[in-house]
Amino acid sequence: MERSRFKATIQYVGSRYHGWQIQRQRPTVQGVMKDVLAQLAGEKVSITGASRTDAGVHAIGQVAHFDFPLKPTIGDLRKALNGTLPWDIRVVRLKRVRPTFHAQKDAKKKRYRYRIFNGPVLPPFEYGRALHVRRPMNVERILEAAQCFLGTHDFTSFAAASTSVKTKTRTILKSDIRRRGFWLTYQVEANGFLHHMIRNIVGTLVEIGTGRRASHEIQRLIAAQDRTLVGPTAPPDGLFLVHIWY
Amino acid sequence: MERSRFKATIQYVGSRYHGWQIQRQRPTVQGVMKDVLAQLAGEKVSITGASRTDAGVHAIGQVAHFDFPLKPTIGDLRKALNGTLPWDIRVVRLKRVRPTFHAQKDAKKKRYRYRIFNGPVLPPFEYGRALHVRRPMNVERILEAAQCFLGTHDFTSFAAASTSVKTKTRTILKSDIRRRGFWLTYQVEANGFLHHMIRNIVGTLVEIGTGRRASHEIQRLIAAQDRTLVGPTAPPDGLFLVHIWY
Repeated sequence: MERSRFKATIQYVGSRYHGWQIQRQRPTVQGVMKDVLAQLAGEKVSITGASRTDAGVHAIGQVAHFDFPLKPTIGDLRKALNGTLPWDIRVVRLKRVRPTFHAQKDAKKKRYRYRIFNGPVLPPFEYGRALHVRRPMNVERILEAAQCFLGTHDFTSFAAASTSVKTKTRTILKSDIRRRGFWLTYQVEANGFLHHMIRNIVGTLVEIGTGRRASHEIQRLIAAQDRTLVGPTAPPDGLFLVHIWY
Repeated sequence: MERSRFKATIQYVGSRYHGWQIQRQRPTVQGVMKDVLAQLAGEKVSITGASRTDAGVHAIGQVAHFDFPLKPTIGDLRKALNGTLPWDIRVVRLKRVRPTFHAQKDAKKKRYRYRIFNGPVLPPFEYGRALHVRRPMNVERILEAAQCFLGTHDFTSFAAASTSVKTKTRTILKSDIRRRGFWLTYQVEANGFLHHMIRNIVGTLVEIGTGRRASHEIQRLIAAQDRTLVGPTAPPDGLFLVHIWY
């Protein structure tokens, strides 16, 4: 049967899932989406996401494409999806696209956000949705360090040791941190990210903010191309996939 | 042993609890607080809250008092409490107060907030923390109606039918609604509220906003002193106890 390709913008609270990518025996966002699509279509439907977010990472703007049989209207299909999906996954936008559109390969730029609560008591509403750092942090020093990531670099030092990709060179277009009350928000944009790259950057920035590391170390860390020199991987809780540009 | 009285400002995500007030066999915020205090004190400690929030209602600024034996510092006691409490209950401020301070009887004014999401798809991060109304709402009409609640009235029409209190007269000092994007936030302040009063007010305001009821009906509804004329009780999800003045 003839199928139409759809582009879906998806939000999810990542806490209950082992990330985006489908895995046997473990709940994943892609797995749930695939099951719900099959249920609505009456046949197998595969879905491809732009970003393989890790377990516990959240999305405000994940993008995925799938080919759907039948000829539903956009509104009906979105309602049917959201009516069947669990509460923590929502299709916020749906668009019919050309049959060659590819959510992952066509992505030009991605923005992520990492939220840090730097006060004494994490509000319970933010549990699982932020990193709680109790020690006071110096935002000026973090900002200085954050800006050293800008530009095109080999990010071997900041990628998970297990990463196997053709090239570990990426171009960072934005790397910025803001304080508002107890909240620190790190925003980062790039043409692509390596596995654990943002969480390793944040782990290192937190060490700089709390004074355990100097802000001028970043250039040296990048140049060394050695994962063992870099700070710990920050937890997934604070990380949000915000937007993908095509 | 000598005890000191403490005033605690408490935040909680109400979703997992059958409200503030202790009940047999059911998890309540007061019950959890009492157990944690007993565990830390090594003896029974009772705790009195300012507001008996309903099942599912949230708090940003619940206030409670308790008498604690031993002589902990404020910082140590707050850390011990938050280290023992489940993630969805947090003591955000703690203060030593005079032994006659009473969280409920000394309260002068309370502010609640009710959050309504008036867009097509509720963001998953807001699940259980807002009322989702899909039908378009007219905020000007709701505001007009909301202002009719201001002043001193007998609120029998807006109290749960089962309410048994000496007087159902309360003074509303603020009753205001704002729109920001898809979000509507209703803020209400009074010297006190009857059981279900805010949720019944909101249920009626939603009927007015969606055009099922006229905004000028409020005066008549208040004057009638008849619960059966008023709209449905809005769900607890959108309701937050924000602040209590002493």
